[in-house]
Amino acid sequence: MYFYKEDLINMIVPDKPDPAAAKVLQEALGGRFGEMRTLMQFSFQSANFRGKAKQYRDLIRGVMIEELSHVELVQTTINQLLNGSGDEGVGNNGEDGAPLDIALENVNPHHYIMGAQASLPVDAAGNPWSGSYVYSHGNLVADLLNNVMLESTGVLQKSRLYEMSSNKTFRETLAFLIVRDNAHQNAFAKALETLGVDWGKLFPVPNYDLNKYPECKKYVDMGFHNAQFNFRLDETRIGEVFQGPSPSRNKEPLQVVDPPKGYPVPEMPEMPNEHAPGLYDLNS
Amino acid sequence: MYFYKEDLINMIVPDKPDPAAAKVLQEALGGRFGEMRTLMQFSFQSANFRGKAKQYRDLIRGVMIEELSHVELVQTTINQLLNGSGDEGVGNNGEDGAPLDIALENVNPHHYIMGAQASLPVDAAGNPWSGSYVYSHGNLVADLLNNVMLESTGVLQKSRLYEMSSNKTFRETLAFLIVRDNAHQNAFAKALETLGVDWGKLFPVPNYDLNKYPECKKYVDMGFHNAQFNFRLDETRIGEVFQGPSPSRNKEPLQVVDPPKGYPVPEMPEMPNEHAPGLYDLNS
Amino acid sequence: MYFYKEDLINMIVPDKPDPAAAKVLQEALGGRFGEMRTLMQFSFQSANFRGKAKQYRDLIRGVMIEELSHVELVQTTINQLLNGSGDEGVGNNGEDGAPLDIALENVNPHHYIMGAQASLPVDAAGNPWSGSYVYSHGNLVADLLNNVMLESTGVLQKSRLYEMSSNKTFRETLAFLIVRDNAHQNAFAKALETLGVDWGKLFPVPNYDLNKYPECKKYVDMGFHNAQFNFRLDETRIGEVFQGPSPSRNKEPLQVVDPPKGYPVPEMPEMPNEHAPGLYDLNS
Amino acid sequence: MYFYKEDLINMIVPDKPDPAAAKVLQEALGGRFGEMRTLMQFSFQSANFRGKAKQYRDLIRGVMIEELSHVELVQTTINQLLNGSGDEGVGNNGEDGAPLDIALENVNPHHYIMGAQASLPVDAAGNPWSGSYVYSHGNLVADLLNNVMLESTGVLQKSRLYEMSSNKTFRETLAFLIVRDNAHQNAFAKALETLGVDWGKLFPVPNYDLNKYPECKKYVDMGFHNAQFNFRLDETRIGEVFQGPSPSRNKEPLQVVDPPKGYPVPEMPEMPNEHAPGLYDLNS
Amino acid sequence: MYFYKEDLINMIVPDKPDPAAAKVLQEALGGRFGEMRTLMQFSFQSANFRGKAKQYRDLIRGVMIEELSHVELVQTTINQLLNGSGDEGVGNNGEDGAPLDIALENVNPHHYIMGAQASLPVDAAGNPWSGSYVYSHGNLVADLLNNVMLESTGVLQKSRLYEMSSNKTFRETLAFLIVRDNAHQNAFAKALETLGVDWGKLFPVPNYDLNKYPECKKYVDMGFHNAQFNFRLDETRIGEVFQGPSPSRNKEPLQVVDPPKGYPVPEMPEMPNEHAPGLYDLNS
Amino acid sequence: MYFYKEDLINMIVPDKPDPAAAKVLQEALGGRFGEMRTLMQFSFQSANFRGKAKQYRDLIRGVMIEELSHVELVQTTINQLLNGSGDEGVGNNGEDGAPLDIALENVNPHHYIMGAQASLPVDAAGNPWSGSYVYSHGNLVADLLNNVMLESTGVLQKSRLYEMSSNKTFRETLAFLIVRDNAHQNAFAKALETLGVDWGKLFPVPNYDLNKYPECKKYVDMGFHNAQFNFRLDETRIGEVFQGPSPSRNKEPLQVVDPPKGYPVPEMPEMPNEHAPGLYDLNS
Repeated sequence: MYFYKEDLINMIVPDKPDPAAAKVLQEALGGRFGEMRTLMQFSFQSANFRGKAKQYRDLIRGVMIEELSHVELVQTTINQLLNGSGDEGVGNNGEDGAPLDIALENVNPHHYIMGAQASLPVDAAGNPWSGSYVYSHGNLVADLLNNVMLESTGVLQKSRLYEMSSNKTFRETLAFLIVRDNAHQNAFAKALETLGVDWGKLFPVPNYDLNKYPECKKYVDMGFHNAQFNFRLDETRIGEVFQGPSPSRNKEPLQVVDPPKGYPVPEMPEMPNEHAPGLYDLNS
Repeated sequence: MYFYKEDLINMIVPDKPDPAAAKVLQEALGGRFGEMRTLMQFSFQSANFRGKAKQYRDLIRGVMIEELSHVELVQTTINQLLNGSGDEGVGNNGEDGAPLDIALENVNPHHYIMGAQASLPVDAAGNPWSGSYVYSHGNLVADLLNNVMLESTGVLQKSRLYEMSSNKTFRETLAFLIVRDNAHQNAFAKALETLGVDWGKLFPVPNYDLNKYPECKKYVDMGFHNAQFNFRLDETRIGEVFQGPSPSRNKEPLQVVDPPKGYPVPEMPEMPNEHAPGLYDLNS
Repeated sequence: MYFYKEDLINMIVPDKPDPAAAKVLQEALGGRFGEMRTLMQFSFQSANFRGKAKQYRDLIRGVMIEELSHVELVQTTINQLLNGSGDEGVGNNGEDGAPLDIALENVNPHHYIMGAQASLPVDAAGNPWSGSYVYSHGNLVADLLNNVMLESTGVLQKSRLYEMSSNKTFRETLAFLIVRDNAHQNAFAKALETLGVDWGKLFPVPNYDLNKYPECKKYVDMGFHNAQFNFRLDETRIGEVFQGPSPSRNKEPLQVVDPPKGYPVPEMPEMPNEHAPGLYDLNS
Repeated sequence: MYFYKEDLINMIVPDKPDPAAAKVLQEALGGRFGEMRTLMQFSFQSANFRGKAKQYRDLIRGVMIEELSHVELVQTTINQLLNGSGDEGVGNNGEDGAPLDIALENVNPHHYIMGAQASLPVDAAGNPWSGSYVYSHGNLVADLLNNVMLESTGVLQKSRLYEMSSNKTFRETLAFLIVRDNAHQNAFAKALETLGVDWGKLFPVPNYDLNKYPECKKYVDMGFHNAQFNFRLDETRIGEVFQGPSPSRNKEPLQVVDPPKGYPVPEMPEMPNEHAPGLYDLNS
Repeated sequence: MYFYKEDLINMIVPDKPDPAAAKVLQEALGGRFGEMRTLMQFSFQSANFRGKAKQYRDLIRGVMIEELSHVELVQTTINQLLNGSGDEGVGNNGEDGAPLDIALENVNPHHYIMGAQASLPVDAAGNPWSGSYVYSHGNLVADLLNNVMLESTGVLQKSRLYEMSSNKTFRETLAFLIVRDNAHQNAFAKALETLGVDWGKLFPVPNYDLNKYPECKKYVDMGFHNAQFNFRLDETRIGEVFQGPSPSRNKEPLQVVDPPKGYPVPEMPEMPNEHAPGLYDLNS
Repeated sequence: MYFYKEDLINMIVPDKPDPAAAKVLQEALGGRFGEMRTLMQFSFQSANFRGKAKQYRDLIRGVMIEELSHVELVQTTINQLLNGSGDEGVGNNGEDGAPLDIALENVNPHHYIMGAQASLPVDAAGNPWSGSYVYSHGNLVADLLNNVMLESTGVLQKSRLYEMSSNKTFRETLAFLIVRDNAHQNAFAKALETLGVDWGKLFPVPNYDLNKYPECKKYVDMGFHNAQFNFRLDETRIGEVFQGPSPSRNKEPLQVVDPPKGYPVPEMPEMPNEHAPGLYDLNS
C-alpha cells in the first residue's frame, strides 16, 4: 500500500513562461524513456518478481516509489512553464481578440485544448504514452540490463533537453533528474556488479562534464548521485545491494538515505480563458 | 512524495490456475477503464488542479493513492492465476515435450513470452495501455463527470468479468474492486452533488443485486462502498466533500476511514521454463 | 446534409449464435478494408474534391452514402451472432455459476466486457480502427486507384470470411456485401475507364465462382453487382460515369437504380447479465 | 438507410487562409472529442441498443445523423482555411522557388503531403483518429453519462479553440458547433433527467458568457441551443425525451424542429502544385 | 540471403543544414507511403508468394532489394540536413547558453532528443511507422494494384515535398527517388499489362512536367525511369515482365540494367552536445 | 547497396501444419524484440553512426545484414506452419461446408483474412510492428547496451517459444535463431568489453542448458554461437571487434566466417480458397 505527503521532491524555481520548453519537457514525462515508463516498468518488475533474492525486488520497488515523485515533479514543472503563456481575456477579449493565439506557435496545441495549460501523458512529439514501452520479462539479468539502459537513456535525453532552453524552471528540474537518474543508473549497474560484472570506466552514461551543467553541481555536492532515498515505511533489503563503491568512474560509496525534506506544491492560478476550474458562478 | 509499505490492500484467495481468466482480468489492469487509467487520470487531474477549492483536489488525489494499491492487487491476482499454468520441465522436457503448450490455448501468449507467467500493461484483447485514455481537462465539472463515468464503467466491466469464471482468486479480487469502485463512484458523484446536482435513484451504476455477487456482500457489510480510505500522512480536506448521505440509492452516510490493515504479498515461485529469475548457476 | 429512415439495406437471416464468427466478421466493420474505412475514405475524398469534374465526386459521395447502411448492416449482423451466446443468469447464477464463461473461449472478450454482446469499432484481431487507414490525396487518379484496390480487397477478404462458418446470419450478410463491393469495384474501375484505361479481363477481383457462394447468386440475379443505388434527395451526376458496359469480364450494362425497399431492424433483447440496458428498477 | 442532399448545415464565411488555424481545428474533426467520435459513438450506441425504451435510441440516432453534417462542415471549413495557403507555381516555379514552403511553418505538414491542402482524419497534434475513442457499453445510464461528458468536452474544447484565431471562417463554424454541442449536451442531460436526475445549475459546461463569443449569439437567438433538428424521413420517438424545460440553467423549452435550410458547398479550386485533381492533360 | 557493399545508390549533394526540411523528408522514410513501407511490403509479398508464376515474385523481390538502398539514402539525406543545425557547445556553453534551442523551432524535437541529429523511423508528423501499412494479401492482382497505387503515391508525395524547400541536399535525393518510384510504378503497371490491362495515357501518376523538376531531368536522361536495377547475385526472371514498351505515356522500352556504380557514404562528424558517439574519454 | 541470392540462411524442416504455433512465432518476426526490430534498429544505428570508430559501425551493419535473412527465414517458417492448415475446397465446398473454419480456432484470424495463410508484420497478440520499438540514440555505449539487451531478450523469448510446440518446422528455426542471437549477444557484449567492461559469468542470457534444446546442439557444434557471418562484398573492420575470447561463460574464440551455403526456398502451393495467387482463369 502507498501513502502520500503533499510535498514535492525538489523545488520549482520561478522564471518566465516557456511553452516551447514545456512541449519538449513532455519527453521526460510521457516519452519512451520518461518518468511514466520508469514508474510503470519498475511497478511491473517488482510485482512480477519471482524467487527468494528479494534484495533485488526491494531495490526495484525502492526506485519505483521515487518515480512517483518524479512524475509529480515533471507535471508541476510543465505546468509552471505553461502558466501565463496565453494572454488575458476570454473569447474575443484578449490581445488581438485571440487570447490563446500562442497555441498556433511552436507549442503542443493539446496543452491548450485538452490540458488547461497543463501537463499531458504524451511525449515531445505529442504521441501518447504506451504500455508497449514497459519491459518486464521476469529474468533478473535481462530486466536489470534493460533498467541500466533505461536510466542511461534517461540521463542522455535529459542532458540533451537541458541544452534546449536556459529557462530556470526548466533547467533546475532537469538538473535534479539528471543526477537522480545517474543514481538509479548506479543502482541497477551495481545490482549487475553483485552478479559478477566489472563495469570498468563505462559509467555514467553519458559521460557529462559537471561544469557544463552548473545546476547539477549542487545535487552532486549533496551526494544525490550516490544516494538512494528510502521511502519505505517498513523494512527493506535494498541496502544489501545499494552499498559499497559506486559502479561509476568515481567509485564513491553508495548509501541509502532519508528522502529530501520536501518542497511546497505551487498553487496554480485560475485560468478563465481555459474555463479552469470553471466554478465561477456555480459558487455565486 | 509517496511512501510504501509492503502490504496488499486485500487478500489473495488461493485457487487453481486459470490463465484464460488471467487474460480477461487484464482489462481491469491495462484496459481503457482499468486501474492504470484511474491511477494516471487522477494523477494528472490532481497535479493540474487550478484554483483554491482544494477540497476537490484532495478528493481526487485521495482516490489516486488508493489506485496504486489497486494496480498492485490486480497485478498480483493475475500472477496468481497464471502461476503453475504451464507444465513442469524446460525445453523439450515437459509433458508431450512442450511444457508451455498452454500458450497455444485461449490465453494471452504474451503472458508466457514477455511476462514470465506474469501480468502485463495490456487489456483483455492484448492492446497496450495508452496515454490517450487519460481525461484531464482542468474544468472541474467536466473532470468530475468523466470520473463518475469512469468509475461507473469500472463497476460495470468488473461485474461482467465476474461472470466469466468461478475461480475464487479471480472473484475475490473483482468483488473487492467492485465495491471500492462503487465507493469512488460515490466520491465523484458526491462532489457533483456539492455543486448542486441531485442524482435521484441513478446510482450505483450498474444497479447490481448483491445476492448475485456473494463475495461483494462482506465488503458491503464492512461499509467499504461508503468509505474512503485515507492514505495521507499529512492533513487533507477530503472530508469536506466525502461526508453526509451517499449519492447512491441507499443514502447511507459517507465516511473517511483508516486504510485496511494490509495483507501479505504472496511469494512467487521460481519458474525455470520461463528462465525466471534465471539466477540458478550465477549463484552456484 | 444527411437523412435517415429506419430500414436495413438487407435482411438479417436468423440462425444460432456464433460468437467466433462475430469475432472475425469485425474485420468487415472495423478492419483496414472494412466498411468504416470505405465510409470515411469516401467521406474525405468527396469533401476534399477539387475542380469541376464533379461527376467523379458525385460517384464517390454516392458510394459513401451506401457505406453508412453497410456499417449499420454489419453492426446488426454481429449483434445477431452474439445475441444469446452467453448463458442465462447474472453474477454467479448461470450455468456452472459463470454465465459469461463463453468469453474465455475463442471469441473477442471485448464483445462481452465493452459491448453488451454487441459490435465494436475493431478488427478481427481486436485492433481498434485507425484514421491512418483513410486514403484521400486529392489526385483523382491516385484516389480512384486506391478505391479500386480497396473495394477489390473488400471482396477478397469477405470471400475468405465466408468460408469460415456456415452460419446463415453470417453468410447472408457477407454474400450481399460481396456483390455490393463488386458493384463498387465496378464503379471505380469504370471511372478509370472514362480516363482511358481498358481493364481487359482483370475484374472482378477475386475471380470468384458464383456456384461456390450460392447466397451471392440471388443478388447477382437481381443485378446488384451492376447497379448503383441512388440515395440522393437532389440531383446527381453519378450516371455520367456509372453507365455503359461493366469494366468486369461480363461487360453487362451498369445502371443507377433506386435503393432496396428496406428491411426491419431486429429488436435486441434485454441482456441482464450485461446490465443492458440496465433500466430495471429505475422504472419500477 | 441514409439519404443525402448536397447542402451544408451552416454557411462558410470567407476570410484569408489560416493553415495554423486549420491545424488546430482538426481537433474538432479527428480528435478524441471531435465530430468523428460523436458520429461513430452514437452510431454504435444506436445500432447496439437493447430493450424497448426506444425513445432513447431514437434520441441517440437523431443526434448521430446530425453529426454526419458536422463532419462535412468541419472538413469544408478546414479546406477553406487551407485553400491558397501555398504560393502559386509548381516544382521550383513558386516564390523563392519553393511554392509549398509554408509546409515547413507551424502547420500540419500532412495537410500538404497527404491532403492536397485538405482535411485529414487526425487531431490537432497529428494523431490519427482511433476506434478506441468510442464508448458503447449498452448500459443506458453509463452510455448517457458518457455522452453528456463527451458533448460537454466538445463545447469546452471548441470554446478554447475559438480563442486561438480571429479568422472568421474558423470562428463562424466553431460558434455554430458550440451552440449545437450545447443542444446535444441538453439532449443527453435531459435523457438522464427523465431517469430522475436534477442537474441544478450545473449546465451548460463550460459556463460560457455569450458576450465573449459574439458569433454564438445569433445561433442562440435562433434557439439552436434548445432545438434538436429532425433528419428522420420516418417516425421517431425523440420528442418523448427532447421536450419540456432545458436541463441547462435557463430552463427554456426544448423543441424538435426542422433542419436548417442548407447552405451551398463551396467549390474547391484546382491546386496544380498539389497535382489535384491532376486531370490536366488527361482531358487535353 | 543478402549481401552489402558500402555504397550509396545516389550522391549526397552538400548544402546548408535545413532541419525543417529534414522533418518533412521523414515522410519519405517512415511515412505511410515511404521507403520503409515499400521495403517491408515487397519483402512480405515476395516471401509469401504462391504458385509457379515466379517472374512476378522476382519482380517484387527485385524492387524490394533496391528499397534497402533507398532507406539508406533517405536516412543519410536526413542526417545531412540535420548535421550542424544546432550551435557549438555543450550544456550551457552554446549561443545564448542553449546550444540546442533550435529544437524548440519548427523541427521534429525527437531529431535532437532521440536521434543525435539523425533520422528516425517516423513520418513528417512524428508518428512511428506501423506494420499496419503493409499490404500482402497473396492475390496477385490485388497485390499488384496496391503496389501501383503505392508507387504512384510515392511519386505524388515526393513531388509535393520537393516544393517545400530549395535546399540542394533535399531536392537531389527527392529527384532521384521521384524518377525511381516512376520506374517502379512502371514495373507494377507493366505486370498488370501482362495480365491484360491497357493503361492508355494514365501513367505516370502524377503527370509531372519535367521542366519544373530540373533535378529529375538528368536521371530521366540516364533512362532511370525505364530501368530496373538488378541486384541479384543469381538468376532472376524479372526480365520476363520488365521488358517491352513502358506502360507510361512515353511507351519507351523498359530494360533491366546494372545498378549504379555507387557513391561514398559521408562521414558524420562527432556531435558533442548530443553525446554522440560519446567515446571521448573512454579512449583517453 | 544491397544484393540478394535466393537462398535461405537455414533449412526448413517439414512437419504437419501448426497454425497455433505460427501465431506465436509471429513474435519472432513482428514482435517488440523480433527480427524486424533488430533489422531496423541496426539499420538506423549504422546509418546514423557518428565519428571515426567505424569498427563498431561495421559490426552493427554486419549484424543488420544477417537480420535480413532472419526476417526471410521466419516469414518462410510461418508460411510452412500455415500451409494446408485449412481444408480443401472453396466457398461452401469444403468440410462441413466451411473450409476455412480453422480461422475460428486458436489462430491469428488475420493469417487467413489478410495473409493467404502467410506471414504478417505483427506480433503473437496481433499487434502491428511499430517504429517506436527502434532504439538509435547515437551514443555508442547506450546503443550497445540496448543491443545487448535486445539480443538477450531475443534468446529469452525464443527459448520460451521453443517450449510451446514440438513441431519440427517450428523448433528447427527457433533453435537456429537462438544460437545466432547468442552470437549477436556476444558481438555487442564484446564491443562493450573493448570499452573496458568485464562481464564475468553473466552471459549468455538466459543461461540455457543445451541438453534441453537438442536442436540447438548441432549449431553450437558448428560454432555458430561464436561466429559472425560476413555478408560484405567489400572490406569491413568488423574483425577488429569480433575476435578474441567470447564474453560468454565459455570464453571460446570469436571468429568472422563465411555465410552458410544457403538452403532452397520452398515453393508455396496455390491456395484456391484464399484466391492466392488468383491467376486461374486469367491464364486460361
